[in-house]
Amino acid sequence: MLKAVGVSFGIAIGKALVISDEVVEVKKSKVSDSKGEVARFDNALKEAISELEKMVEGVKEKLGNEKAEIFEAHLCMLEDPEFIGAIQKKIDDEMVSAEYSLQTVSTETAAVFENMDNEYMKERAVDIRDVSKRVMNILMGIKVASIADIQDECILVARDLTPSDTAQIDKEKVLAFVTEIGGRTAHTSIIARSLELPAVVGAGSDIHQIKDGDLIIVDGEEGLVIIKPDEKTLNEYKIKREEFIESKHQLLKYATMSSITTDGKKVEIAANIGSAADLGAVLKNGAEAIGLFRTEFLYMANDALPTEEEQFVEYKSVLEKMNGKPVIIRTLDIGGDKKLDYLPMDEEMNPFLGYRAIRLCLDRTDIFKTQLRALVRASAFGKLKIMFPMICNIQELRAAKKLLEECTKELKSEGVTFDEKIEVGIMIEIPSAAIISDVLAKEVDFFSIGTNDLIQYTLAVDRMNEKISYLYDFYHPAVLRLIKIVIDNGHKAGITVNMCGEMAGDANLIPVLLGFGLDEFSMSAASILRARKTITNSSFKECEKLSEPVLTFGDADEIKDYIKANIKA
Amino acid sequence: MLKAVGVSFGIAIGKALVISDEVVEVKKSKVSDSKGEVARFDNALKEAISELEKMVEGVKEKLGNEKAEIFEAHLCMLEDPEFIGAIQKKIDDEMVSAEYSLQTVSTETAAVFENMDNEYMKERAVDIRDVSKRVMNILMGIKVASIADIQDECILVARDLTPSDTAQIDKEKVLAFVTEIGGRTAHTSIIARSLELPAVVGAGSDIHQIKDGDLIIVDGEEGLVIIKPDEKTLNEYKIKREEFIESKHQLLKYATMSSITTDGKKVEIAANIGSAADLGAVLKNGAEAIGLFRTEFLYMANDALPTEEEQFVEYKSVLEKMNGKPVIIRTLDIGGDKKLDYLPMDEEMNPFLGYRAIRLCLDRTDIFKTQLRALVRASAFGKLKIMFPMICNIQELRAAKKLLEECTKELKSEGVTFDEKIEVGIMIEIPSAAIISDVLAKEVDFFSIGTNDLIQYTLAVDRMNEKISYLYDFYHPAVLRLIKIVIDNGHKAGITVNMCGEMAGDANLIPVLLGFGLDEFSMSAASILRARKTITNSSFKECEKLSEPVLTFGDADEIKDYIKANIKA
Repeated sequence: MLKAVGVSFGIAIGKALVISDEVVEVKKSKVSDSKGEVARFDNALKEAISELEKMVEGVKEKLGNEKAEIFEAHLCMLEDPEFIGAIQKKIDDEMVSAEYSLQTVSTETAAVFENMDNEYMKERAVDIRDVSKRVMNILMGIKVASIADIQDECILVARDLTPSDTAQIDKEKVLAFVTEIGGRTAHTSIIARSLELPAVVGAGSDIHQIKDGDLIIVDGEEGLVIIKPDEKTLNEYKIKREEFIESKHQLLKYATMSSITTDGKKVEIAANIGSAADLGAVLKNGAEAIGLFRTEFLYMANDALPTEEEQFVEYKSVLEKMNGKPVIIRTLDIGGDKKLDYLPMDEEMNPFLGYRAIRLCLDRTDIFKTQLRALVRASAFGKLKIMFPMICNIQELRAAKKLLEECTKELKSEGVTFDEKIEVGIMIEIPSAAIISDVLAKEVDFFSIGTNDLIQYTLAVDRMNEKISYLYDFYHPAVLRLIKIVIDNGHKAGITVNMCGEMAGDANLIPVLLGFGLDEFSMSAASILRARKTITNSSFKECEKLSEPVLTFGDADEIKDYIKANIKA
Repeated sequence: MLKAVGVSFGIAIGKALVISDEVVEVKKSKVSDSKGEVARFDNALKEAISELEKMVEGVKEKLGNEKAEIFEAHLCMLEDPEFIGAIQKKIDDEMVSAEYSLQTVSTETAAVFENMDNEYMKERAVDIRDVSKRVMNILMGIKVASIADIQDECILVARDLTPSDTAQIDKEKVLAFVTEIGGRTAHTSIIARSLELPAVVGAGSDIHQIKDGDLIIVDGEEGLVIIKPDEKTLNEYKIKREEFIESKHQLLKYATMSSITTDGKKVEIAANIGSAADLGAVLKNGAEAIGLFRTEFLYMANDALPTEEEQFVEYKSVLEKMNGKPVIIRTLDIGGDKKLDYLPMDEEMNPFLGYRAIRLCLDRTDIFKTQLRALVRASAFGKLKIMFPMICNIQELRAAKKLLEECTKELKSEGVTFDEKIEVGIMIEIPSAAIISDVLAKEVDFFSIGTNDLIQYTLAVDRMNEKISYLYDFYHPAVLRLIKIVIDNGHKAGITVNMCGEMAGDANLIPVLLGFGLDEFSMSAASILRARKTITNSSFKECEKLSEPVLTFGDADEIKDYIKANIKA
């Protein structure tokens, strides 16, 4: 039995398909006919391109356009004259083998990407390695079992899965993943959750205990892999699997329900998204709104600031797909741990306490106004709400609203039509904003509590810092008290109060937050159905009564025990 | 007229003494008789040592033992066989001039110190350069006007003043400083404040407008330097100077008064110190307690963890010098921006939100218990109170108290006598602690509000980060509300509430804090007399009434205007 990190719920039982990742080490070898060697490389390149073109088509057909994007990106790389030219030139100049030249150039190129500060560009290193391996295998005549060709049901066991591996996965055949490396936010984990396949990652070298063809059980909740289970265990897990499938099936009915408590209080369950591409699962699970559209990905996936037009197209697309349902778009929250290559920023000693989000936008009004104009223009195509992040005092809010007003005036004078009553709200994610929320509430249309940052600042804990992340706690009484204060202050001013941090999707806390009076719960698409089940099975009055004592406790552990004992989701 | 940074109050009018800092660039030059060259170096060394020895004596006599320490440190460097040996060896090995060898070795050595993480060790680089320059001047036959030999009153104008410059300053002769570089926390600024001389630093290259012998006016409050003033300006400033001297003189009477308001409420004005060496000014100004003894300097000035005995001696010395007055000693607050060379720590992305203070101490209980034992032992020699920094939840407080109890039990069983009723308190410097101060108050004897950090976390602003430090604001309504909450919660539980952040010494805010009910104001020694003047001239009842509306404002600017208009210190 292996214990590692469960990153995607569910139970799978099946035969292991071990994907070997033997790294072929190419030694430097000289060739005498460099022209012939370049031609050999060009042929391999042509074959790889043709493979990829077939894949694009096959994947599009089987899994949709979006999944094919990865192979289109690989095609672009193989057609990039700079990258390919460098390989050809090296063969010719140094009279070395195509394999050696390919290995050298692609390693160097991947390293350049890897050392970039931008997460998006870092990931391009994976693509470079992935596509280079494809050409290398052709050059060396290595045939690789393609994930696309899997005929029988299996559980993939690998060091890691590349984007082109995961893009070919057929959910009818692949039951689960187990990987040697990776964590909760690794590509493999994200894909597993979006495919709703059980997955255990980060198993380390223990993974080699699993042999190709072994019967294994994967428990994605507990992070367990059981190798060659005995009869008793197997039967136990078969029952568990049925239960899981049943409960998942049961959840499906919540996709079309409204989020109304047993005693008739209506709340909203909304989704957090990073781009229009995330909308599939959101719509499938029946989110009642987008509670947080993080626009920074639009900036991070670009190699220059996105133009007003580029932004407009993206915002419009989300609004149209949401078909009249409310969409809260958060203005740029860059800085902190999110950097842009094309926008160099000074090194900061404490970036989380630094120049980021609204602080940057109010300084770089050129960047900010471009986004605000795009947002206002998009407002004509759906129910758009604008949200400012990292507000810490009233001056910032007023300054941001003033710039927004400037933009609407400009657009009006340009004859552009837009929603004249766009709602404007703020993230409550800095303690000072929570503490003066009575004052802020008078000047906005809604609040959205960003618990991830709010907890960090309230407890002075960087949750990415492993040495002290044990202090980061949803259940800290100060956090819960601040949330209650914000909700009460919002309601006193007659505005709605949402939450878009991770707490909003926490099944144990939803009844407490409901009891506090929270109006909208915004979460990842995968959490929506469970949350709606909890809410539709709860009585608001009871939650209200049960959540009251929570504010009197001084100790997070007491709160956890109390919730466990008294609040049944 | 120059406008720069005023770092020490007061007005001075006098002739400029421009101290040239021409850097002598030594080119590499070969010598044929390396033995002779080493001898030449040895002679210069001997002369420098003799100069320094004379200085130590002279300074001790004129300015006290403490000021002489710097020259004793320089003597140690010139007697360090490793440093001196390296210079001699280079002359001999490479057949180069003594000047070149001295320059090369001292530059390298200074760079090593400069690159250390520890602020204390970094400063040693200044000493290396300082002492090397002395030897270089002797080698090159350069005579330098010694600050110790100044005969007439003057205002020093320099690029910067070295520790050995400032140590020789005779307050009867030197009226003020003006420097090209530096800021509020530079060595020169600290010395100016401790000598109570007006000073303006960071004037930049404009400083070259001042010629040796020019009549200049220095206004240390406004940060102004007026060069060759006209008659009218001169007379204006003569009056201002008289007023300043008079008001300073007036303040002296507050040194021996109690801190009692006009309507009879007694509070405490206490001092913040870093070591026993700071006690001179504290006692002179009549501090009623030590509100914050920052023990980390004891660790930073060492090249290994200070032993229990070393700590005991220091704590005992402070307690004895305070002669029964309360002394709050804060346990180690290392980490964040304060590092120890001999205690390597992982790099952190956001050190202010990281592994520091009580977090480190509860992890490294070996270090913590050594300090706690030293503290408990010292408690027999005065009125010691122990304070834990960076408490963010109740578990940390309980864990720290448990370790303290272990130490007292150990010491009891060892037969050591100590104060059986040492008061234990915590810093309130993390928002969560302020918010659950009702709960924390029940388990401590006092609170001390650490506004410097509390403001940073409450507003999510690193005040050291120039790009956003404009957001750091004493007057933010959230900060004032939190302070009021903490005071009220403390008083409800019957404990005293102190403040040891910079706010406590802010003349405009003292009446507000007094009105909020603050029990103790702890500040730098230099602020004590002004603060006591404010308090003894205030009515508590009036301050209470006046401070109430402060809590209703949502905007720091409104609060500033209100205080300006209504509260007269």
